[in-house]
Amino acid sequence: MRQEQTEPSEKSISGGIDYPVPAREQRRALGNMVFATEKLLLTKMLRAIGNPPVQLVLWNGHEISNHQDNPVARILIRDRGALFKLVIDPELYFGELYSAQRIEVQGNLLDFLEAVYRVWLLRNRGKIGKKQLAPFYDARRNTLTGARRNIHHHYDIGNDFYKLWLDERMLYTCAYFPSPGTSLEDAQLAKLDHVCRKLRLQPGEKVVEAGCGWGALALHMAEHYGVKVTAYNISGEQVAFARQRAHAEGLDGQVEFIEDDYRNVRGEFDAFVSVGMLEHVGTDHYRELGEVIDRSLKDSGRGLIHSIGLNYPRPMDAWTERNIFPGACPPSLAQMMQIFEPFDFSVLDVENLRLHYAKTLEHWLQRYEDNVDRVTEMFDPAFVRAWRLYLAGSLTAFKMGGMQLFQVTFARAGNNHIPWTRQYLYEPQDTSLGESDGKL
Amino acid sequence: MRQEQTEPSEKSISGGIDYPVPAREQRRALGNMVFATEKLLLTKMLRAIGNPPVQLVLWNGHEISNHQDNPVARILIRDRGALFKLVIDPELYFGELYSAQRIEVQGNLLDFLEAVYRVWLLRNRGKIGKKQLAPFYDARRNTLTGARRNIHHHYDIGNDFYKLWLDERMLYTCAYFPSPGTSLEDAQLAKLDHVCRKLRLQPGEKVVEAGCGWGALALHMAEHYGVKVTAYNISGEQVAFARQRAHAEGLDGQVEFIEDDYRNVRGEFDAFVSVGMLEHVGTDHYRELGEVIDRSLKDSGRGLIHSIGLNYPRPMDAWTERNIFPGACPPSLAQMMQIFEPFDFSVLDVENLRLHYAKTLEHWLQRYEDNVDRVTEMFDPAFVRAWRLYLAGSLTAFKMGGMQLFQVTFARAGNNHIPWTRQYLYEPQDTSLGESDGKL
Repeated sequence: MRQEQTEPSEKSISGGIDYPVPAREQRRALGNMVFATEKLLLTKMLRAIGNPPVQLVLWNGHEISNHQDNPVARILIRDRGALFKLVIDPELYFGELYSAQRIEVQGNLLDFLEAVYRVWLLRNRGKIGKKQLAPFYDARRNTLTGARRNIHHHYDIGNDFYKLWLDERMLYTCAYFPSPGTSLEDAQLAKLDHVCRKLRLQPGEKVVEAGCGWGALALHMAEHYGVKVTAYNISGEQVAFARQRAHAEGLDGQVEFIEDDYRNVRGEFDAFVSVGMLEHVGTDHYRELGEVIDRSLKDSGRGLIHSIGLNYPRPMDAWTERNIFPGACPPSLAQMMQIFEPFDFSVLDVENLRLHYAKTLEHWLQRYEDNVDRVTEMFDPAFVRAWRLYLAGSLTAFKMGGMQLFQVTFARAGNNHIPWTRQYLYEPQDTSLGESDGKL
Repeated sequence: MRQEQTEPSEKSISGGIDYPVPAREQRRALGNMVFATEKLLLTKMLRAIGNPPVQLVLWNGHEISNHQDNPVARILIRDRGALFKLVIDPELYFGELYSAQRIEVQGNLLDFLEAVYRVWLLRNRGKIGKKQLAPFYDARRNTLTGARRNIHHHYDIGNDFYKLWLDERMLYTCAYFPSPGTSLEDAQLAKLDHVCRKLRLQPGEKVVEAGCGWGALALHMAEHYGVKVTAYNISGEQVAFARQRAHAEGLDGQVEFIEDDYRNVRGEFDAFVSVGMLEHVGTDHYRELGEVIDRSLKDSGRGLIHSIGLNYPRPMDAWTERNIFPGACPPSLAQMMQIFEPFDFSVLDVENLRLHYAKTLEHWLQRYEDNVDRVTEMFDPAFVRAWRLYLAGSLTAFKMGGMQLFQVTFARAGNNHIPWTRQYLYEPQDTSLGESDGKL
């Protein structure tokens, strides 16, 4: 079959003259022909993703460059199967092939990702149709059991793994850097206080936290703001860790960690807070979340939701959703409003901390690389590479403007005990809350 | 007819015994019966609007109270026609009847409105259905000609009228009170600076303003931030006034006032700003507005939209929309996002200044009452009362949480020349903008 297919090309290569071709030359010519096909496919693929300035190198040493003088990286494609997958769906398969070492990035991974992302952004500008703005279904249903399975996939990898590259408090959400040079430890502490101050917590108040991670915010609120916290989480490993911590810090009387879904929150509270859970809720459950908040908050209640977001609705990239974050679905601001609008909540303040997440990821990636030997002892090489790509890819997305971080502060419509201005958030002391006190 | 209808009741009143009733007693009994019907209707109406603690007094002295001990006000209904209109649609007709002096409010108008609003809010809680959240059509189409007609209705009443109760700069939008005791003049100045600082205007930059009122912001930006401003407005009276002012202040080389629709904005700008126009745009034109912003802004561009808003989509109250603000339609935040999401704009910051608008309206209402004699010389009594009710009603809506004031700051997705934090907005000096400078 192959022989037959190549014959006409052989002829054209040899100028159409019909004379016997020596076996070695025939093989070379065949190789050239196959390469021509591969080159065509890859050139098409590069064009489809917007022609980032890269050089592709095949397993046999053949090189394909899209005529750009300074490629940011050389991409080694190690086998023909990898090539075909890449051609079929680069966005989906790049991560898989990179993890499996069937693709190598020679050069700076971040520079490469940034170059790809830049052309992707340019290519998409002005192409956001009404179809894309329509609500889309979530990739994996975050039902009560579905959510538990999805969360287990990501957060129960092992606390020891996360300890290798998170800050000492184990905060796996965007930090708040008062200035870009702040350390990660200080920036995570600043984030905790930024959230608490936005919530204007008062000693003795009751707070419910939905999705509490390893418990750092709950413990911080209890210790430094004197509130009673009920914190929900469906990751068993995280809850076990958080409980230990509360006990060790003598805060178990003030903080209760409950291994359960946010939908099962019971009780009445002064404040509702959720940092980094909404990404896992799924837009089709936002009304349910709004109902939970509505039935949990006192009339004087207020709340804060901190979440990764998007400028416009679109599904998470397929590789991350499949391999790293099953069920994840960051919302646009309009989508987030589906939590608040049906229940007449007033949005008081939205702060976009996009560049703070890029900075946070810069720290995480650095610590990850610093500890990559330990990671390699703990997991197989594909895992090590997948997580490198995930951290580097996320950093790129936040840096280039493809992902956002929204902190949304809200209160009930008629609550006039709201800050008169946001000045108090930027004053050194916590004391002057500048409340309007309900009087005008 | 009447006689016939009343006879059975007469009988029942007299215990069913059939004996001649003297004419005077008959009239009184008839009166009682009619009153019983009116009482029934009004009681039903009061119940329908949530039973606010008021006392109703009819033209004949009859009183109806909904068994509340301390009515906030006595409402005088001067004729039977007024009563029927009130029963049919209190929300729509109250304003008309009050303006026409067919209804009087004895007691404090604001206390009365607040009481009505309070029960209205309670009654509506939890009743926001999916139907209400669906986009609704705008009451009056804000097409190019429609918008011009609608704007003429409100803003071309006469500059002399607005001078009577606005601040010296003629700003007819929510002020920013650094503290509740700030004067209106200072608060409007603070608002101008708050907007300019959020936009991070640099000398020499080009700014486009959509809906510039009497020109105060445009002139302020030019004078104090050294930018060149192109300002659009379709109110002829306002543009004439603004041009005079620019000439008098020697700023006509720096500020161009154009009497045209925002949809006809041409050119490329560093910043887009619109304060108090969006209320008149209509949600079905938001994508069009987004397109205008998208084609007007440089890659480094940023923008700010300041608008009255709502916690959830609903039409403006019918009386105000008919009589004061034809075509007005304040959006919910989700609706506002229809401007930004189709064009991949990043929302950087949303600030809700609801209580600042209540405070602004408090000042306007006070000045209006202080100058009511002048208003009375200029307009008929119905106008004087309609505007009193409009100012008092708006103050009540903002104070009670029924209306919001959103300031939304945005930039293009990939623009990293955005402030690192919002700290600089709360520092006394303008110099340290704290820009991220695109580097992380």
